Amino acid sequence: MNYKLTLSYEGTRYKGWQRLKNNPDTIQGKLEETLSRLCHEAIEINGSGRTDAGVHALNQVCNFKTNFNWRLDDLKNQLNRFLPEDVSVLNAEKVDERFHARFSAKTKTYAYRIWTAEYRPVFERRWVYASQEGKLDVNAMETAAKVLVGTHDFKPFSSDRTKKSTVRTLYQIDFEETETELVIRYTGDGFLHNMVRILTGTLIEVGQHKREAVDPESVQDRSVLGFTAPACGLTLESVKY
Amino acid sequence: MNYKLTLSYEGTRYKGWQRLKNNPDTIQGKLEETLSRLCHEAIEINGSGRTDAGVHALNQVCNFKTNFNWRLDDLKNQLNRFLPEDVSVLNAEKVDERFHARFSAKTKTYAYRIWTAEYRPVFERRWVYASQEGKLDVNAMETAAKVLVGTHDFKPFSSDRTKKSTVRTLYQIDFEETETELVIRYTGDGFLHNMVRILTGTLIEVGQHKREAVDPESVQDRSVLGFTAPACGLTLESVKY
Repeated sequence: MNYKLTLSYEGTRYKGWQRLKNNPDTIQGKLEETLSRLCHEAIEINGSGRTDAGVHALNQVCNFKTNFNWRLDDLKNQLNRFLPEDVSVLNAEKVDERFHARFSAKTKTYAYRIWTAEYRPVFERRWVYASQEGKLDVNAMETAAKVLVGTHDFKPFSSDRTKKSTVRTLYQIDFEETETELVIRYTGDGFLHNMVRILTGTLIEVGQHKREAVDPESVQDRSVLGFTAPACGLTLESVKY
Repeated sequence: MNYKLTLSYEGTRYKGWQRLKNNPDTIQGKLEETLSRLCHEAIEINGSGRTDAGVHALNQVCNFKTNFNWRLDDLKNQLNRFLPEDVSVLNAEKVDERFHARFSAKTKTYAYRIWTAEYRPVFERRWVYASQEGKLDVNAMETAAKVLVGTHDFKPFSSDRTKKSTVRTLYQIDFEETETELVIRYTGDGFLHNMVRILTGTLIEVGQHKREAVDPESVQDRSVLGFTAPACGLTLESVKY
């Protein structure tokens, strides 16, 4: 049986999604440990992708296979009974054997939340970036974002040192302004390591008039891009299949 | 000079608003300590009212007097620099000498947030009540709420053992249903100790069909009312003057 789980987590105290050998504080590690106990066999899960240390998720998706025949409500409720309070399973489904949370994913949407109010956040403090770096010129940021959208080699926008393809398609970058926040939403077919945080740092510096808009086609290296915005502001919002 | 402050706090780790002799973990205590340091004189503040241990505030209001002549931005920024991360000053104003955060208050609005989704809350977990007590009959709750609104002696709905008047006016009880929460909002001229939590516990038990609606005019004692809903679900949303 192939099961698909949708889950939320607050990433603050975790070393990220990806299981680590010598550190139990990863989301994948917690999930696999709990699932293995519940299914009475060693379970390995496939996440839609890794999230970095400190990054959050509203709707992360993963799948796993087991011979154990679960009632879906039981699976969800048992997981939520044993998982830590900062991880919660929203939904459990049975899916086709060929479904793979990473390879079947069509698009992902990440939100980067920048706190803009002139006081410190209280309730949001663990999942926004409270830059306190002054007013941002959102129009300039929107103009710069338009140049980033499209299919490009995003290698300079990444800390990946992989030999695999670093070409990705960014379908959309949306800006939402609330009374207290500027939220930048990125939808793409996939994201390289640190890519959303470097895109965001670059856009923030454009919004501060510290940097010009950059064309991914002409970027040669990391030095012409902005800083890597902190992990705490980033949330994986959804994965579409 | 008389200053009015508007502040947010997450009450989770505090013993409540009210200063205590032998415990530094109160909001009033933290504020007075910080203000006294900044104003170079002992400052006492008046809150619009006390919030219990574990209760939160979006817009609590207080005032204090000092000879120190503050630029308002400096006052706000200095406070936010030195206050703990779960307390933040949203706004500082100079007000008339006669302004008193408690005595001048006209109405207060409290929100009680009940988590209703069929999975555990992650990001909201510290400020909702995740009852997991099954579906609530919101129509029955709304009908019961209508009987509570008005000017009544709310003594049974309180743990106050005061000899002062326990007559209060509840102007409004509103229900808001979102995908994951039922929010009950109470607006009144003032609230007795634990009153909102006992009103909420009573309404929850009505929503579970465990209890009939109660008329405050005929309630003799606490035993015919519901449980005291947990502090964590309660937030002081606003105070009007």
